[in-house]
Amino acid sequence: MDNLYRDIKAIRENSPLVHNITNYVVMNNTANALLSIGASPVMAHAVEEVAEMAGFASSLVINIGTLSEKWIEAMLIAGKVASERNIPIILDPVGAGATKLRTETTMKIIDECRPSIIRGNASEILAVTSSFGKTKGVDSTQSSDSAVDSAKQFAIEKNVTMVISGEKDYIINENETKEVSFGNAMMAKVTGMGCTATAICGAFAGINSNPLDASYHAMLTMGICGEIAAVKAEGPGTLQLHFLDALYNIKEKDIAEFRR
Amino acid sequence: MDNLYRDIKAIRENSPLVHNITNYVVMNNTANALLSIGASPVMAHAVEEVAEMAGFASSLVINIGTLSEKWIEAMLIAGKVASERNIPIILDPVGAGATKLRTETTMKIIDECRPSIIRGNASEILAVTSSFGKTKGVDSTQSSDSAVDSAKQFAIEKNVTMVISGEKDYIINENETKEVSFGNAMMAKVTGMGCTATAICGAFAGINSNPLDASYHAMLTMGICGEIAAVKAEGPGTLQLHFLDALYNIKEKDIAEFRR
Amino acid sequence: MDNLYRDIKAIRENSPLVHNITNYVVMNNTANALLSIGASPVMAHAVEEVAEMAGFASSLVINIGTLSEKWIEAMLIAGKVASERNIPIILDPVGAGATKLRTETTMKIIDECRPSIIRGNASEILAVTSSFGKTKGVDSTQSSDSAVDSAKQFAIEKNVTMVISGEKDYIINENETKEVSFGNAMMAKVTGMGCTATAICGAFAGINSNPLDASYHAMLTMGICGEIAAVKAEGPGTLQLHFLDALYNIKEKDIAEFRR
Repeated sequence: MDNLYRDIKAIRENSPLVHNITNYVVMNNTANALLSIGASPVMAHAVEEVAEMAGFASSLVINIGTLSEKWIEAMLIAGKVASERNIPIILDPVGAGATKLRTETTMKIIDECRPSIIRGNASEILAVTSSFGKTKGVDSTQSSDSAVDSAKQFAIEKNVTMVISGEKDYIINENETKEVSFGNAMMAKVTGMGCTATAICGAFAGINSNPLDASYHAMLTMGICGEIAAVKAEGPGTLQLHFLDALYNIKEKDIAEFRR
Repeated sequence: MDNLYRDIKAIRENSPLVHNITNYVVMNNTANALLSIGASPVMAHAVEEVAEMAGFASSLVINIGTLSEKWIEAMLIAGKVASERNIPIILDPVGAGATKLRTETTMKIIDECRPSIIRGNASEILAVTSSFGKTKGVDSTQSSDSAVDSAKQFAIEKNVTMVISGEKDYIINENETKEVSFGNAMMAKVTGMGCTATAICGAFAGINSNPLDASYHAMLTMGICGEIAAVKAEGPGTLQLHFLDALYNIKEKDIAEFRR
Repeated sequence: MDNLYRDIKAIRENSPLVHNITNYVVMNNTANALLSIGASPVMAHAVEEVAEMAGFASSLVINIGTLSEKWIEAMLIAGKVASERNIPIILDPVGAGATKLRTETTMKIIDECRPSIIRGNASEILAVTSSFGKTKGVDSTQSSDSAVDSAKQFAIEKNVTMVISGEKDYIINENETKEVSFGNAMMAKVTGMGCTATAICGAFAGINSNPLDASYHAMLTMGICGEIAAVKAEGPGTLQLHFLDALYNIKEKDIAEFRR
């Protein structure tokens, strides 16, 4: 956690431009979370402009939550530009495993765009890695532990950082596995909290070139701000606002208090 | 109201999957409301995946608030699958009567997909039922009372539960008319509160196979939580957050206090 | 400021219908802001219905924040109908200058639909006016002052009211330049606050036929409500809710206190 605050300061000072091609449900949340932490979000999905926009972004977040044909096309165009220019790509395979379209689109993006970071819940990560032949199925009730082994194998073979979020979060690359145990159960009752975690990975990846450190710092920030917000919240409604306030206000001493 | 809390507990225990094909404006609100009450929302609108998604849902919510051609196609595909499998469909004819596209799409969905529940404000319900020949026109300033008679006739002929929301809500099927008088006027100043009511009907329909009871329980929940939220709110902004908190926190004794 | 409250009362009494063809990120925010101030928002973007919807609106807001081909087509259809019927058009050229698609679409809408009001930040306004040959480039770090001269020239040549928002807001037509210095820096950390300003211009333009006065009143309202909200807010999350509450609650005496 020692370098977490250094990275938060870097985001606030450099305002990395995070290009999001994301889903309709969470666009507002994730834009607000990125602004609150200090990044500069842009949402653009037209096939006519995504190459241009991705080309000058600090990172590209691709989230498949509300897919359709044209959007998939735009994701692949932007992803290839980002990949060519070494702009980090963070992929959120929302609902992978639920429909064929989602699973196949996820695999296509991984193969053609080579994301640096993939973040999902255990079911989604298992769906992604099982098509690789390492797990048997997908079960949305699975805990994050259940996906660690296949995520590790996938991280090695595809050279990608895997983030499994849940009650405990795992951040995994070929050499290392980090864990984050902060957070509050009520966060799962706010739509798009996972998508927000992915976007926040994009903010850190925009200023830290090590995908493992960037996503570890993102998950720490999510967990710490979630706990700070939960103290003030009376339910999922007020939680999401206090969470944005916490992202905006987080200080070095707040982080120190979570050193446990 | 006696079985209301039983149904809320059933939603919390079973987390019915509510598949929403809804409008861009309210997706976030309705997902959050469904999560707060305990259901599991999914938004998916691609023609390539809606049949698959609707096929394993507990209920399907179709909301025409921001229509376009591809989305209408997806609504009809999902609606037919749901209808074939006896998955309850809840239709929100947002703005029916305002444009030809909305009125015609509404009638097409009703004819081809056979929804269990239709929920709208008085103007929308009159627009839907008048094309059936029973009312003269549409006036958005109409009170919910004005639509009761034509809704009743429509309920009989189409075998559907009609929900008219307004200062007083009416829940109507061929045999019975129920009323709900809870709520707060400020709720009309929060965008998508009507759409949220429709989504909450979807949550109850996912665990209660009687459409009249499911929608009556949904409207009671909306009204009671609206009143609880209004006590804490200073305006429409804070109201919507306290409303989500209230959905999340509602207990048997809260309901008992509203027995009047 | 003397007629500001008169106009707010007129919005509350007449509920002007503001037709928005806007971006996915802010639809919810702007609908809520319009409802809170007392207007009646409608969002509709299908090429099949926008002409009909724009035709009975009090004003038309066009915002290019998340463009795509079909939406551009709809903007032009609705814009031409509004223009023919003297329904005021308010244009928000979000991200003009960032991509060719955005800059070109902006110029096309200006040429074909003749908006009454154009509102953007300094970079966007410079992008719009420089293609007109008066400025050298676009820099998102520019202060609002930097765009005043070219905005004035553009206002004269195109007969349009230009609104440049920033720490200081400028409202400019061919004869006059007004300034608004209210507001709070935290407003820039809430996504869509600029888009909300544009929508609020739409509410005032719906009841006040003078575009300069309408946009001046809109920017005063934004600034005053932003300051009221900032007193209660602990960050950008809570700010946006208190801001909506402030729009809903603003009274004549609140305005008087800002007379400085």
